[in-house]
Amino acid sequence: MISKEMNKNLSINGGIREAFNEARRQKALYGDENVYDLSIGNPSAPVPRKVTEVLKDFCGKKELDHQYMCESGYEEVREKIADHLNQKYNTGYGINNIIMTNGVAGGINIVLRALLNPGDEVIIFRPYYPAYKGFVENWQGKIVEVNPKEDFQPDFEDLEHKITIRTKVVIVNSPHNPTGVIYTKETAAKISEILKSKQKEYGHAICLLSDEPYRDLVYIEEKLPWWPDFYRNTIVSYSFSKSLSLAGERIGYLTIPTEVEDSENVIKAVRLAMGRLGFVNAPALFQRIVGECIDEQVDLEYYAKNREILYGTLKQCGYECIEPKGAFYIFVKAPDNNEERFLELARKRHLIFVGGSSFGYSGYVRLSFCCKYEVLQRATDALKHLADDCRLTAS
Amino acid sequence: MISKEMNKNLSINGGIREAFNEARRQKALYGDENVYDLSIGNPSAPVPRKVTEVLKDFCGKKELDHQYMCESGYEEVREKIADHLNQKYNTGYGINNIIMTNGVAGGINIVLRALLNPGDEVIIFRPYYPAYKGFVENWQGKIVEVNPKEDFQPDFEDLEHKITIRTKVVIVNSPHNPTGVIYTKETAAKISEILKSKQKEYGHAICLLSDEPYRDLVYIEEKLPWWPDFYRNTIVSYSFSKSLSLAGERIGYLTIPTEVEDSENVIKAVRLAMGRLGFVNAPALFQRIVGECIDEQVDLEYYAKNREILYGTLKQCGYECIEPKGAFYIFVKAPDNNEERFLELARKRHLIFVGGSSFGYSGYVRLSFCCKYEVLQRATDALKHLADDCRLTAS
Repeated sequence: MISKEMNKNLSINGGIREAFNEARRQKALYGDENVYDLSIGNPSAPVPRKVTEVLKDFCGKKELDHQYMCESGYEEVREKIADHLNQKYNTGYGINNIIMTNGVAGGINIVLRALLNPGDEVIIFRPYYPAYKGFVENWQGKIVEVNPKEDFQPDFEDLEHKITIRTKVVIVNSPHNPTGVIYTKETAAKISEILKSKQKEYGHAICLLSDEPYRDLVYIEEKLPWWPDFYRNTIVSYSFSKSLSLAGERIGYLTIPTEVEDSENVIKAVRLAMGRLGFVNAPALFQRIVGECIDEQVDLEYYAKNREILYGTLKQCGYECIEPKGAFYIFVKAPDNNEERFLELARKRHLIFVGGSSFGYSGYVRLSFCCKYEVLQRATDALKHLADDCRLTAS
Repeated sequence: MISKEMNKNLSINGGIREAFNEARRQKALYGDENVYDLSIGNPSAPVPRKVTEVLKDFCGKKELDHQYMCESGYEEVREKIADHLNQKYNTGYGINNIIMTNGVAGGINIVLRALLNPGDEVIIFRPYYPAYKGFVENWQGKIVEVNPKEDFQPDFEDLEHKITIRTKVVIVNSPHNPTGVIYTKETAAKISEILKSKQKEYGHAICLLSDEPYRDLVYIEEKLPWWPDFYRNTIVSYSFSKSLSLAGERIGYLTIPTEVEDSENVIKAVRLAMGRLGFVNAPALFQRIVGECIDEQVDLEYYAKNREILYGTLKQCGYECIEPKGAFYIFVKAPDNNEERFLELARKRHLIFVGGSSFGYSGYVRLSFCCKYEVLQRATDALKHLADDCRLTAS
């Protein structure tokens, strides 16, 4: 009964789902504690205490109202978010520039719904978050992939080459899933320069959509570039899934600056898309919660410790990988470029990774360190054995 | 920067939005208490006490987990819902037949995403909930409208006539927005008979999608038909927005019986659509809440009282309308079939309705009685004056 497109999609065995199933299978066989599932990006850091307290406060109120509100969300919450951004980035946003969304997945979908004509091209940077493809296909957009340089910053020449008259949106994601790379200010400036020149060449706006669920998970001193400072036609999508460990509650927001070309209509269209896609409004209670907790975040030390043990172990064993500066992933080169064999050997050691092919970048695997520290501690020996299996030379 | 389709949509001034703006304008001018906004469907009945208590209990827990879960939702919640349905309808559903959704708007969208090929036809019954059109257009489906009989039950001959080889989905909505009509068992049997015969004729499955946000708001003794009892290929979409007054929290569920043709793939495709549209999963906390409150509902007397005063006043004044048996709307015939003039005269009396044209049925207006009783009390005089303005004969 299902559509042809869905039928096709069902037959594609996504690597993340495959890993999920394998982890479940192994846990049933060998016990939870003997399987090291580094595949999923489900944040395990405890919710900040203030979130718990505010939630308790709100839910203690007898007359808490759970009604529909305006499709953009509660005005008082959007005002708090605008103030927060204004203070942090020295901007001048008002409530109209903020739209509460169901996380970044919801935010990206309504932006694409608002902007894409069938056949419009959306540029993403390899390796990429796999869900982008489905989001773009929803609206008959065409995915165009840009290659990375060796350090996983974008290959600017390739970007320049890939932009065409049909390019409508360019999605950037920093801190980056799956590599943990942070796009530097130089990268932001260079991308901005290219987009500006291409806008001029083709005579129409190109939207930079910055997907920032990991904005607050950064392990270096350097400040992240705020993309709208570099490029006028930027829309920013943020989520509290990771920063407040609220992934299941589906809460985030879009920032659509007034500087964006035709911003009034863009905002109207995105709001309309909230209804048309069936979101209606972002979940009411958690809008209020994040409004009260806008300056909070999970204990960064929780993930920093995880990063240290995992990256340390990997380097010590002789695996080839780049130290992640943000997010909670490490992208590891498969020995002999043989991703499938590496995944298989790992599975035998009860280590569950996701193959780089899922991210449009074969020959690598993604390891997630958003799990509990104990899992990574227990995984250390398995990672060492796996290195031996692969005949890596310990450093 | 927005797409052509969105640009077109922005220029269509939806009647509900128009009414919303008019109510806001008038309230600013004349004060909240002097404007009778009967336009919106935002349920004002208090949340059942148990919901408030369970919410307090859950949020008092220190270690409440807000992580992602499986895209269908928590298994224990789906089990409770399946049990509830099995008891109520004598069915044999299991957790796989239940998918937690962001209300019915979310549920309908993911079903349509899973089923529709571009150009597939979706049948809706006039007058209809206006958002269906946008939902179907998302996936390049084609809306086909079926006319009602005088009592607002479907015109079966017209239905038979409108089904073609491209018909993929038929959406029914009972209790019905905007008329308050309930489709009888005879209607369910007749629709089922027609669909079965057309399935045979065209050699492929036609999905009946039953949109049931008002399932539990019924003011008569008669039991509603459970559509899957009548027709095998039925998917049911339910929401707790009205039954628990949780509209802003976006929580509901789909029932996809195993009897549905190719149900395994339908379920898989709908789950996939949860991710692809960016819902990811229904909001976590409110899944747990509705799981604990599955047998609760708002005080029906709250709306019954509203129905009584509004319907009583309307009949007394000589307005032409059908007594609503469910939901919280009354569909009133505009005197002389002149919807625009009726809306205008009403506005002058500070009465805000939505024109029937918004529901694909001109010459009528929709009055909502989900507001507070006091609003309807205060509106009584205005409704009488409006009847005089329209030269209606009081009964």
